[in-house]
Amino acid sequence: MEAYQNLSRAQLEALKARLEQDLAGYRARGLSLNMARGKPSAEQLDLSMEMLDVVNSKSDCHAEDGADCRNYCDIYGIPEAIRLFAAYMGVEEDEIVICGQSSLQLLYDALCRAMLQGVLGSDKPWGKYEHPKFICPVPGYDKHFGFCKFVGLEMIPVPLRADGPDMDLVEKLVAGDESIKGMWCMPKFSNPFGACYSDEVIYRLARMQCAAKDFRLFWDNAYSYHVIYKDHPVLNMLDVCKEVGNPDRVFLFGSTSKITMAGSGVTFIAASRANTEFIKKQYAVQTVGWDKMNMLRHVRYLKSMDNIKELMKKHAAILRPRFDAVLGTFDRELTGLGVGDWTRPDGGFFVTYMAMPGCAKRIVQLCADTGVTLTNAGATHPGGVDPEDSYIRIAPTYPPLEELKAAMEVFCVAVKLASVEKLLAA
Amino acid sequence: MEAYQNLSRAQLEALKARLEQDLAGYRARGLSLNMARGKPSAEQLDLSMEMLDVVNSKSDCHAEDGADCRNYCDIYGIPEAIRLFAAYMGVEEDEIVICGQSSLQLLYDALCRAMLQGVLGSDKPWGKYEHPKFICPVPGYDKHFGFCKFVGLEMIPVPLRADGPDMDLVEKLVAGDESIKGMWCMPKFSNPFGACYSDEVIYRLARMQCAAKDFRLFWDNAYSYHVIYKDHPVLNMLDVCKEVGNPDRVFLFGSTSKITMAGSGVTFIAASRANTEFIKKQYAVQTVGWDKMNMLRHVRYLKSMDNIKELMKKHAAILRPRFDAVLGTFDRELTGLGVGDWTRPDGGFFVTYMAMPGCAKRIVQLCADTGVTLTNAGATHPGGVDPEDSYIRIAPTYPPLEELKAAMEVFCVAVKLASVEKLLAA
Repeated sequence: MEAYQNLSRAQLEALKARLEQDLAGYRARGLSLNMARGKPSAEQLDLSMEMLDVVNSKSDCHAEDGADCRNYCDIYGIPEAIRLFAAYMGVEEDEIVICGQSSLQLLYDALCRAMLQGVLGSDKPWGKYEHPKFICPVPGYDKHFGFCKFVGLEMIPVPLRADGPDMDLVEKLVAGDESIKGMWCMPKFSNPFGACYSDEVIYRLARMQCAAKDFRLFWDNAYSYHVIYKDHPVLNMLDVCKEVGNPDRVFLFGSTSKITMAGSGVTFIAASRANTEFIKKQYAVQTVGWDKMNMLRHVRYLKSMDNIKELMKKHAAILRPRFDAVLGTFDRELTGLGVGDWTRPDGGFFVTYMAMPGCAKRIVQLCADTGVTLTNAGATHPGGVDPEDSYIRIAPTYPPLEELKAAMEVFCVAVKLASVEKLLAA
Repeated sequence: MEAYQNLSRAQLEALKARLEQDLAGYRARGLSLNMARGKPSAEQLDLSMEMLDVVNSKSDCHAEDGADCRNYCDIYGIPEAIRLFAAYMGVEEDEIVICGQSSLQLLYDALCRAMLQGVLGSDKPWGKYEHPKFICPVPGYDKHFGFCKFVGLEMIPVPLRADGPDMDLVEKLVAGDESIKGMWCMPKFSNPFGACYSDEVIYRLARMQCAAKDFRLFWDNAYSYHVIYKDHPVLNMLDVCKEVGNPDRVFLFGSTSKITMAGSGVTFIAASRANTEFIKKQYAVQTVGWDKMNMLRHVRYLKSMDNIKELMKKHAAILRPRFDAVLGTFDRELTGLGVGDWTRPDGGFFVTYMAMPGCAKRIVQLCADTGVTLTNAGATHPGGVDPEDSYIRIAPTYPPLEELKAAMEVFCVAVKLASVEKLLAA
């Protein structure tokens, strides 16, 4: 295919007319397709229906330690859940707390505590600094950015690359500003970029000199076992932090939201023993415990790490055709046109499309006008503003395959049309 | 019985020796009884075991509006849960949000939001005031006080009476200090005092002039249908606030923790339409939704307000003998001795014992030494300090009846011994 940049004005005009006609054709089909959020598909949720049977009216609802899971008690998690999810996170059993149903809430809540109370080693709550700041690798996850704004953390964007954040910049920033208190990290198959942090990036994050002695990496490992094509093992950050003598630098977050049922999972926060002790003391104030019945349900259903890995293979089998459809359509429709680039993630939940600068909003708008709802352009950047207006998050997991294919066709036409418009306006 | 105050020194010495012997006798029995927290008994939890069957692997997991409860979506609650719990709270369906599993977390979280973001009508987050303050009726709930301290709210204690807080004092305080941002209220069968707010108190709370235009009553209605002996209807605070022209003054909190399963309930926050809209916008940032499967489970099991009321009668039938045992033992053992007084709640979860001043800690200690764990003396007061050292919270709900009777016998001996020691030391 010839790059659009090489086309004459007349050729572009003709192309524009044809693309507009194509979109009108799709519009006439009255599509209503939503790819805005990274929701698992119904087929994925069906995988874990048996979990709903393992705790029933005939069940013994006591945990291994004799605690009645129906009642208040055991606020840091039941022993069998601690054991299973410590293995999942690669930490010791006294380095983890099992929490409620949403890891986003867990992250948000950890930020609130840091703002109002501080973390282990804080001289004062982060909220008592005039301008507390957080480093945000970009493109990143809109909910993370929303949390920062909500609790009052200024965001410092840092470019994310395929192997992790720009470490030269990160090291410079954290060394020079005591009010930079932490950083978002999605170390594996990051939302939405699919980045997997390299060993070098991980060691530099663990080792870097931070002006703030209470600096924390918020390690949101949402996709640690969520391979679609090929695994990219990422180092265990707690081990690395211990090895380099900064054991308290990292909070690790995980959940079963994308293993069992997205809305009814179990979540966990893991950290060094000292951090965990500190967090437990805070939790003892703020809660009388999370849903232990749901922990019991999860442990009796998931049973072991081997089982979890088998289950994740079934998820991959459902997701692979969806990602094939997205990437295949892009390859077929957009290769060589000079209208943008896209990621080829080996796991996670997203593909990122990088449009010709200045085109992302227009593409999302054209899709919306044609019945295809995408994540807002800009959502990948702090404050919802992508200065290049280029990044678009594609969430292929939720729609049925046929709908997804239709949506991707619309998307490709929208990309072409927005690009032609841009070139004509230049 | 003769009041201890009328006994001679020699009589007191003899009594002391006998009481010490009695306690030693109990100690020899190796008791291990825990009455520290207001936990439902296993019999109460057994009442709702069928709830574990109503959602299973064969179930349709869609809500009335078609939402798949297993997935992310519907962050303010599924329609059938909104309908049922709006009826429970006595509010309209657009005046409530259905949330997670713990109402304590819901309260804590609402305080965090107010501190970091403010509430509807705030000029700035409460945390940006130099000394933001909260009014705490005393005796009250230790977790409430813990939240205040944790998030950085100074506590202003106000005496609680059988019909509610000392309103002369409350009115004076809130009128004169813009940094007083809110107040804990447990309007019915309060923890631990069993107070039920009178109509007059409620109207005065709704009407009072507050210097802070963003003042909020945190209305923790944990025991609204939790009658043991006799109902004490309490006015609907949202209705009253609307009637007097202050519709946004109150946040109402409720949960099923003491209806179904304490550790795995469903919670709700209700408020005026304007407040609710504001809260929903905040929730849209902080969460992708709570556990809708558990909402489904609750609605399919509880079905209607009539069913809930029938279930609460079964709870009452289980609790009545326990409260009978406590109050009966006090009547038999302590009446006329001048060693304290106690509440006679008609509902809720607690009895409060008011010991001779300066005796509460000693009583709790004597009980602990004899294998009976009580809530810490002082827990009923902000900062854990009861200046009179008099209040002790008794939680009769959890222990089996026979254990409870034994614990109450120990308690009465401890009360007598501590009182005799006090009189001898005077």
